[in-house]
Amino acid sequence: MTRTILESKTKTAIIGFDQPFCVIGERINPTGRKKLAAELEAGDFSTVEKDALAQVAAGATVLDINAGVVYNSNPNPNETEPPLMRKVIAMVQGLVDVPLCIDSSVPGALEAGLEVAEGRPLLNSVTGEEDRLELVLPLVKKYNVPVVAISNDDTGISEDPDVRFAVAKKIVERAADFGIPAHDIVVDPLVMPIGAMATAGLQVFALVRRLREELGVNTTCGASNVSFGLPNRHGINNAFLPMAMGAGMTSAIMNPVALPVTQTKIEAKKAELASAGVLVPEEMDDETFVTLFGLGSTKPRPGAEMEAIRAANLLTNNDPHGGEWIRFNKPPASASEEATGGRRSRSGGRRRRA
Amino acid sequence: MTRTILESKTKTAIIGFDQPFCVIGERINPTGRKKLAAELEAGDFSTVEKDALAQVAAGATVLDINAGVVYNSNPNPNETEPPLMRKVIAMVQGLVDVPLCIDSSVPGALEAGLEVAEGRPLLNSVTGEEDRLELVLPLVKKYNVPVVAISNDDTGISEDPDVRFAVAKKIVERAADFGIPAHDIVVDPLVMPIGAMATAGLQVFALVRRLREELGVNTTCGASNVSFGLPNRHGINNAFLPMAMGAGMTSAIMNPVALPVTQTKIEAKKAELASAGVLVPEEMDDETFVTLFGLGSTKPRPGAEMEAIRAANLLTNNDPHGGEWIRFNKPPASASEEATGGRRSRSGGRRRRA
Repeated sequence: MTRTILESKTKTAIIGFDQPFCVIGERINPTGRKKLAAELEAGDFSTVEKDALAQVAAGATVLDINAGVVYNSNPNPNETEPPLMRKVIAMVQGLVDVPLCIDSSVPGALEAGLEVAEGRPLLNSVTGEEDRLELVLPLVKKYNVPVVAISNDDTGISEDPDVRFAVAKKIVERAADFGIPAHDIVVDPLVMPIGAMATAGLQVFALVRRLREELGVNTTCGASNVSFGLPNRHGINNAFLPMAMGAGMTSAIMNPVALPVTQTKIEAKKAELASAGVLVPEEMDDETFVTLFGLGSTKPRPGAEMEAIRAANLLTNNDPHGGEWIRFNKPPASASEEATGGRRSRSGGRRRRA
Repeated sequence: MTRTILESKTKTAIIGFDQPFCVIGERINPTGRKKLAAELEAGDFSTVEKDALAQVAAGATVLDINAGVVYNSNPNPNETEPPLMRKVIAMVQGLVDVPLCIDSSVPGALEAGLEVAEGRPLLNSVTGEEDRLELVLPLVKKYNVPVVAISNDDTGISEDPDVRFAVAKKIVERAADFGIPAHDIVVDPLVMPIGAMATAGLQVFALVRRLREELGVNTTCGASNVSFGLPNRHGINNAFLPMAMGAGMTSAIMNPVALPVTQTKIEAKKAELASAGVLVPEEMDDETFVTLFGLGSTKPRPGAEMEAIRAANLLTNNDPHGGEWIRFNKPPASASEEATGGRRSRSGGRRRRA
């Protein structure tokens, strides 16, 4: 049974064939998040703090840390990213106790992260590109950490799954040359958008099975990529994750948190109610309002994907007595909880676990 | 590519490896439905009528017909079930045009159904029990119809998946002796409740794969059985169906319809609103009320499982350009539809297709 061991100062997270699916929270990443990028350049860590707490509360057992901001004041990430990586990791480690995944394309930032991370973090990532292999594998060996191996190489990302398998195999073999065992390599077979490639799902399911059976490695992916460009992306992700787990995938880098209801949505609902003649007391607070009207919550809570993953843990015999499933679906204990954070509907969100 | 062809008078439904998942609506069945049983004994077909229409509207492409009522006036089903089967089939055929699945443990009712069903119905079922094989396979041959083969035999239902596979194999071989081809056998590998047997999911996924690869047969199951006895059964079913499809399952006998909101639930919500000081106009009709307050609908609509199945069709390349997925998730066309039957929430129900 392949097991990849990650550690924080006090906690262990195991990625493994005989383990519940490992959810790696992806939110601490300024790529495509302008507001977060600006905050980080200004030394403001309030969003990072919120994202760390919300993701762990929603069920992430590992947090990805990416500090890839291109500063307006200094466009050279080789200078700016390593010190920012140190700061973000220190901040997150002070706040939550889950193991971290150090995520960068800047070698200096990877090493900076390895220097300050407590325990045994996951390094994200190496690819099959020659220069990456030569830069990253020595770090993996030196710090004795596991690493995410992305199955592209100097020729790019192949649409042929056999080529992607061959790239993964090459990385595993090169790692072995450095004395790095296969159980410390977590392969990302690369998930294409199903809207652009109709066989994307079948490819990944077949690849994950081969990676597991032939190379004996754990696997991960950027799960939400599969639904890119299509409507109701959560509906696709909710089916994709259990199917990938059924094929043998053991972790994903993903957002475990459902987006809180926005003020815009609350105002729109209030206008809709007014036009239907419904009178709502002015003093009602937002959380009571959204709960009463079935809109969700103003607070972050586990996304629908977390329900799908927990059900698939149960169905793959990684929640043997259904204890986790029963706990996850327990109705709120007290009446006050019921009014503000309780179970809303059959297929809707679940309360955050205590 | 194995294909099992079912036909009504005017429509074809195909169960097949290269086809969208075949949803066989299970609702027209008085087992465990006292009210329906009493109605049928009294010659009242109004519930059957509603169930037929709602299931087809929700996406069922085949309807299971079970007329297994034990009459209070006559406890012998060999006398009462065949004429009732004829009546129910005639009624349903007059109302909807999907192929039927004739479901009975009474041989006379199976033959009665075969006599009146138009096109090419699915027969449900034969088992590995000697007397069933001898009774049902000649009917299958005589009427040239496909049949559901349940993998239990005279020794009962084995907990060992290898035994269940062997029973399925025996049925396929015995059918071949009658000249019935494997593509006209749809094997039900039997899904155990995951709450009672932790390996139930893994067993079924492995069995489905073997049945497909080694026997070349289509498969089906009573999908909801997997979640029996556990909380949030829909959450489990929603993951189970995509996982089973990923393993190669090609149909299920299931309820495609979300339960409409009950009057009890509406009254409870009204009381909750009143105590929160919300004033609702008395003249507001129930459907507007439940829509406005995010409760669902008073009308039947596709259950959450239908979203999971459609997403899995997309991910198994059985919805090649995503056309079905996009149609299913289209926001309502008109404002009036929006007020009464529109999309409610990210993970909630979808509007019924036109």
